[in-house]
Amino acid sequence: MTKVMSINAGSSSLKFQLFEMPEEKVLISGNVERIGFEDAYFTTKLNGVKDKKVLPIKDHAVAVENLLNALIELKVVKNLDEIKGIGHRVVHGGELFKESTKVSEGTIEKLKTISDLAPLHNPAAIVGYEAFAKALPKAQHVLVFDTAFHSKMPKLSYMYATPYEWYEKYGVRKYGAHGTSHEYVSEEAIKYLKLGKNSKVITCHIGNGASISAVLDGKCLDTSMGFTPLSGVMMGTRTGDIDPAVVTYMMEKAGMSAQEVLNTFNKKSGLLGVSGVSSDSRDVEEAAKNGNERAKLAEEMQVRSIVKIIGSYYAELNGCDAIVFTAGLGENNIDLRKSVCNQLTNCMGVKIDEEANNCRGEFKVISSENSKVKVMVIPTNEELVIARDTVRLLGL
Amino acid sequence: MTKVMSINAGSSSLKFQLFEMPEEKVLISGNVERIGFEDAYFTTKLNGVKDKKVLPIKDHAVAVENLLNALIELKVVKNLDEIKGIGHRVVHGGELFKESTKVSEGTIEKLKTISDLAPLHNPAAIVGYEAFAKALPKAQHVLVFDTAFHSKMPKLSYMYATPYEWYEKYGVRKYGAHGTSHEYVSEEAIKYLKLGKNSKVITCHIGNGASISAVLDGKCLDTSMGFTPLSGVMMGTRTGDIDPAVVTYMMEKAGMSAQEVLNTFNKKSGLLGVSGVSSDSRDVEEAAKNGNERAKLAEEMQVRSIVKIIGSYYAELNGCDAIVFTAGLGENNIDLRKSVCNQLTNCMGVKIDEEANNCRGEFKVISSENSKVKVMVIPTNEELVIARDTVRLLGL
Repeated sequence: MTKVMSINAGSSSLKFQLFEMPEEKVLISGNVERIGFEDAYFTTKLNGVKDKKVLPIKDHAVAVENLLNALIELKVVKNLDEIKGIGHRVVHGGELFKESTKVSEGTIEKLKTISDLAPLHNPAAIVGYEAFAKALPKAQHVLVFDTAFHSKMPKLSYMYATPYEWYEKYGVRKYGAHGTSHEYVSEEAIKYLKLGKNSKVITCHIGNGASISAVLDGKCLDTSMGFTPLSGVMMGTRTGDIDPAVVTYMMEKAGMSAQEVLNTFNKKSGLLGVSGVSSDSRDVEEAAKNGNERAKLAEEMQVRSIVKIIGSYYAELNGCDAIVFTAGLGENNIDLRKSVCNQLTNCMGVKIDEEANNCRGEFKVISSENSKVKVMVIPTNEELVIARDTVRLLGL
Repeated sequence: MTKVMSINAGSSSLKFQLFEMPEEKVLISGNVERIGFEDAYFTTKLNGVKDKKVLPIKDHAVAVENLLNALIELKVVKNLDEIKGIGHRVVHGGELFKESTKVSEGTIEKLKTISDLAPLHNPAAIVGYEAFAKALPKAQHVLVFDTAFHSKMPKLSYMYATPYEWYEKYGVRKYGAHGTSHEYVSEEAIKYLKLGKNSKVITCHIGNGASISAVLDGKCLDTSMGFTPLSGVMMGTRTGDIDPAVVTYMMEKAGMSAQEVLNTFNKKSGLLGVSGVSSDSRDVEEAAKNGNERAKLAEEMQVRSIVKIIGSYYAELNGCDAIVFTAGLGENNIDLRKSVCNQLTNCMGVKIDEEANNCRGEFKVISSENSKVKVMVIPTNEELVIARDTVRLLGL
């Protein structure tokens, strides 16, 4: 029995869960938001009871201090030394980190060299690590990379058709994202459905960010996010796949810089850009129901983009045993799942069970008995994967 | 019985075919290349006899003059007035030209306003038109747009998830290319296979440039080229689909301008970029057979990209009656067709007949009797579509 912390640090946030392992029991979970502000939030959930405090939190070190104090005050631990391991989610491992890695001398320096692959996210993970390393000097640390699951893709899948030297010299290739989530839900599906060797699973992580993976025999064969999390599925504010020639065209036509066009692709496009209403699919759904044509179009385009990528992976896998929906929309948007599945009836033999599909955030098979392809909803649990990897790598 | 000329003008070339209509008989065909040079080529093919002359041709007007003189000298026509109609291939019709159009007052001025959608190609078509208009003042002209077939795509297919205003104000959307070819081969397949209502055909125009279309009931439902001919399938020198974030990354990392990155995507990528050998698939095939790993990877990547797009259209069409291969590689690359089809066995029920597939440039069914999806090779004939549209629109 040992206590392990799972950490997901953003530029102004810090999500945490403390696990009792190997029981995989969540002792406490919480979130610090608006780090750097006078009115930051510190929320915790303990034994089903939620608590939210508003207080000034000037940086990640202060956030960690608050968090650890709360563990003592709330009597979750008697002594902070009980926390033996801390697992940190890192968005991008580049070509240097292809699996979860125990932090030892030089690890963090190595990590810093690839910060420009995820300039918004990776530095936050390092700041989070440093705050914990200082506050809990006896604990050991593990880095869990969101790209690791995808780093086992075959070269055929991750190479772009750019000059080969760009790959060798600059690391231009497909890296993917949400790897921990794809890994978790595909493993759960394979276990639950008792799929045998060479299982073929398509995992749809559809949240505000969204990606789809083709998983062959438990290993990533392909994934829809690319060099960055911009490509693939149409998302809340991101375009998904688009002709890059639009970049230079808009530079000429609208006098934008390349960076401005890319920022627009990332932050003002997707559901938001097409609907003009919101990046939140609930708002877009509402507007569509009230007759907003652009909102309706945006919804249909997102469904279409999911259908197309599922189709491409169906061909790439040369078959499919199961489709899994997870993350915000995947777990909760009943209409979206239904629309996607209804497009896959003739071609893939998908048959949705409408009654079973009428669920949110539940682990559930939502295809009917006679569906050729099983369809499931599996709530994702990246924190648990992080805790498991931490225990495994630290030998706890 | 009437004579109609089909013209395809490039920046330094002019391809032509003279048809006897409605018999659809080719009276003479030919090509002027290296226009602007002292050693331009003028080739003709008449009754199976090829002829090639090297001579100075300073511009398109001189090319047209040579061509028309040859028609008289070779006794293809007695009098140039016999040529009643001239059909011109135009690469891009933008949002202004959604179908073949008879040239009347203002048409060419209107065409000029969209030159920046295809800055290398559209102006050449205008130069070609002007040369013929001057040389044959009595003939009438028709513009046949390579985007027209795709312009009937539903909005759901052609919209990008960029801000909606970019579509309204700047025409940012998917336009596609090779439309005349997709239209021709899909029609031929539907006719030959006697496909009924709601036929579902996937047409693969794979040449040095390559695009794939989903054709529902004879109309374009979707196509893989986008705003420009850069996206979709991996090509001879073009990347096909790629994360646009590579643009700004390479600007920073390699000090390139956005235009330089895009030029590299268009001209130094694809088979050439990955293999480092050549943009010509025959050279790449040769190198791969001699053990060049990068050449082998390039070949496999191109097959993969075709397979993925076929899969996405299979889902989008929710089924498929026939797959058609056309253009340089599609008609002649036996291994490529085999590799693509062998990836679609379990998922789509495609079964290739290896003996039937052992053909080049022939109109042929290459799937076996028990294949769920018919697979065909259909040599494309854009010139004939142009001639047909010319006759139809001029009422000849």
